Amino acid sequence: MRLLQVTSPEDVLRIIRENFSSLGGETVEIKHAGQRVVGSDVIAPEDVPGFDRSTVDGYALRACDSFGAGEAMPALLNLGGEVRMGEAAPHLPLGACIYVPTGGMIPEGADAVVMLEDTEVLGDIVNCYRQVAPGENIIRRGEDISRGEVILKKGRLLRAPEIGVLASLGITDLQVTVKPRVGILSTGDEIVPYTTASLPPGQVRDSNALAVGELARQKGAEIIYGGILQDSYEIFKSGVEELLEQVDFLVLSGGSSVGTRDFTAQVLEELGKPGLLVEGVAIQPGKPTLLAKCREKPVLGLPGHPVSALNIFALFGTAIIDRLLGREEQEFLATVKARLSKNIPSRTGRTDFVRVKLSKKDNVTEATPVFGRSGLLRTLADAQGLVIVPAQSEGVLAGSEVDVILWE
Amino acid sequence: MRLLQVTSPEDVLRIIRENFSSLGGETVEIKHAGQRVVGSDVIAPEDVPGFDRSTVDGYALRACDSFGAGEAMPALLNLGGEVRMGEAAPHLPLGACIYVPTGGMIPEGADAVVMLEDTEVLGDIVNCYRQVAPGENIIRRGEDISRGEVILKKGRLLRAPEIGVLASLGITDLQVTVKPRVGILSTGDEIVPYTTASLPPGQVRDSNALAVGELARQKGAEIIYGGILQDSYEIFKSGVEELLEQVDFLVLSGGSSVGTRDFTAQVLEELGKPGLLVEGVAIQPGKPTLLAKCREKPVLGLPGHPVSALNIFALFGTAIIDRLLGREEQEFLATVKARLSKNIPSRTGRTDFVRVKLSKKDNVTEATPVFGRSGLLRTLADAQGLVIVPAQSEGVLAGSEVDVILWE
Repeated sequence: MRLLQVTSPEDVLRIIRENFSSLGGETVEIKHAGQRVVGSDVIAPEDVPGFDRSTVDGYALRACDSFGAGEAMPALLNLGGEVRMGEAAPHLPLGACIYVPTGGMIPEGADAVVMLEDTEVLGDIVNCYRQVAPGENIIRRGEDISRGEVILKKGRLLRAPEIGVLASLGITDLQVTVKPRVGILSTGDEIVPYTTASLPPGQVRDSNALAVGELARQKGAEIIYGGILQDSYEIFKSGVEELLEQVDFLVLSGGSSVGTRDFTAQVLEELGKPGLLVEGVAIQPGKPTLLAKCREKPVLGLPGHPVSALNIFALFGTAIIDRLLGREEQEFLATVKARLSKNIPSRTGRTDFVRVKLSKKDNVTEATPVFGRSGLLRTLADAQGLVIVPAQSEGVLAGSEVDVILWE
Repeated sequence: MRLLQVTSPEDVLRIIRENFSSLGGETVEIKHAGQRVVGSDVIAPEDVPGFDRSTVDGYALRACDSFGAGEAMPALLNLGGEVRMGEAAPHLPLGACIYVPTGGMIPEGADAVVMLEDTEVLGDIVNCYRQVAPGENIIRRGEDISRGEVILKKGRLLRAPEIGVLASLGITDLQVTVKPRVGILSTGDEIVPYTTASLPPGQVRDSNALAVGELARQKGAEIIYGGILQDSYEIFKSGVEELLEQVDFLVLSGGSSVGTRDFTAQVLEELGKPGLLVEGVAIQPGKPTLLAKCREKPVLGLPGHPVSALNIFALFGTAIIDRLLGREEQEFLATVKARLSKNIPSRTGRTDFVRVKLSKKDNVTEATPVFGRSGLLRTLADAQGLVIVPAQSEGVLAGSEVDVILWE
């Protein structure tokens, strides 16, 4: 039996950062670029807005013409015309003002807009009851985005606001990083396809491949299911080599028994340097995790238990996908603050991932640990999230405030 | 000019719940069911696991045969064979034990498993150095899921763990709710397609449709872009009627100017009862929001400013999509706790959505408000998230702890 050399989760993440990086880029239309990652810095080709615009419905004027105006003593201005939406504004004559709707172009000569509610129109004369400052109620050309500046950096995830920025600049296509192809291979003589209608005794359906595939897909990967390999060194080795050729990242699911682990580790060593990078992680559940670099590609060997497999993939598999996508580091993790309803015991030297159910009690959010075994998928589907107990902790007492990471 | 009757955001969400509901179901394969919503309760067709399994590598035995065993005095058992993965286990002879790998089937007659490391094999005899209790190291048939129980309730979002549960049960297809078709129509004489290469003075590209479409797509909708309508009552009315026929939910973008708002409201009233439900929301930015029910379908009129439009869609548009998807209410919102670096002033009676930039300072997460105008898309792309200042608050002081909702 091999002795495990366990690595801390922080070190595994560092090893992932040091060993893997972005796969390269491709051009896509921005209407299909949502949730993709920017492949090279985007430079603004023009100013936004492209002209000075009014932020209100009102009258464009020279601010100095309103100086001293008030409720009791309006400034009197000639009505010099109207700005139409979508059209160039007329020039502002001296001593006049021009009607401008919200978003309309500011006439040349004007430097402020007085709001409609601060004015009164009497024939061709506009009474202006408020003094306005230069620049008031105007967005200047280039105030949102200036031509030539880096508007989106390489590595940025394209969310709705970024898509809006690109559209406002008239950028119709952009360079994004390619979607990593993630291959998933299941092993284990007891594992049969999930489509098996009636299970003979001793056999179980392959649920991990599909569950892990769903996590990877959500993260922006394309999935290639490699099927199920028998627990035999030769079949396993050729299956791994074959799928590794076709993908950017290979995930091995199952093979939790000691014998399988041994030849999995052996095959990963034989596929070329540096081979195995991690052969066990100080995490509960999820200790029997393998990470290798074979032919420059990451290979992640997941523990066989469903809960462990999903935990480990959520932590390390998604970190690998982020690296392959060239995504910038995510510094901030959103969590739900909750009060723990029961003690969580923990051993120092090991990071614990504890499933919790959330509930509201007297307007306080309460987290109740679900202490099922890691073989039980149900406990994961029933839990809304996870609490992480760090390696140096001996546990968390009931009543403490905990940060719950939601499973979405 | 119409006077706005503003509604609180809580009331808008209540109105959405009361007026709209799930669209109906369709059957999909589970490998394509990720991020869909369960359409009807899923009943477990069988037990999981389907047989008693070992959770360790070891020897299956009768627990009573190990009673009194210890380091100094092992229990001696005959090695009665081996369980092979994927095969039915042999029967356990009296006074014997049988080797069983992790996940292997427990032989009939055995009621516990002693771990490999607590044993020693001497020829045909296994020395068992530890007493085990009945049930130890065994997952019982049906312990994860029992046949006949409701395993996933209608309205549940299908995340990775749920997909795993379905696969483990051999469920290959299931009923999910249909994806809502969301139509997006832009209005405004100044608005031109985002694909316009060179902008004439006074015109702006339509960035909202694409940005809002991306939010809706991420929420599980299918998007139909209806293009840009001119600011004219007739064109607008026939455009709205035409797209409304083809979709489940119509979003109107733009039309922030007072004139446009007036005929938008008029058209939404004319399309049939109940017509307008909300004609302004006590939210900053985002006040000029319209919500209507026309021909039983939701119609949401977004404010024209890009930041307001995205805020409002993130809040109410996604709530409408959740209702159409029949998704169960999400009770828990994950946030980032941060220390506010500057005061946020606020008027009571109005809920404020304040964009914030996050940074780390001496290991403390700091949130800095971005006080750009709501016309500036850039400020949204630069901010990682939002702080909500409730209507009853007069603002938040620098140094306070705030909950930041991330923009993902």
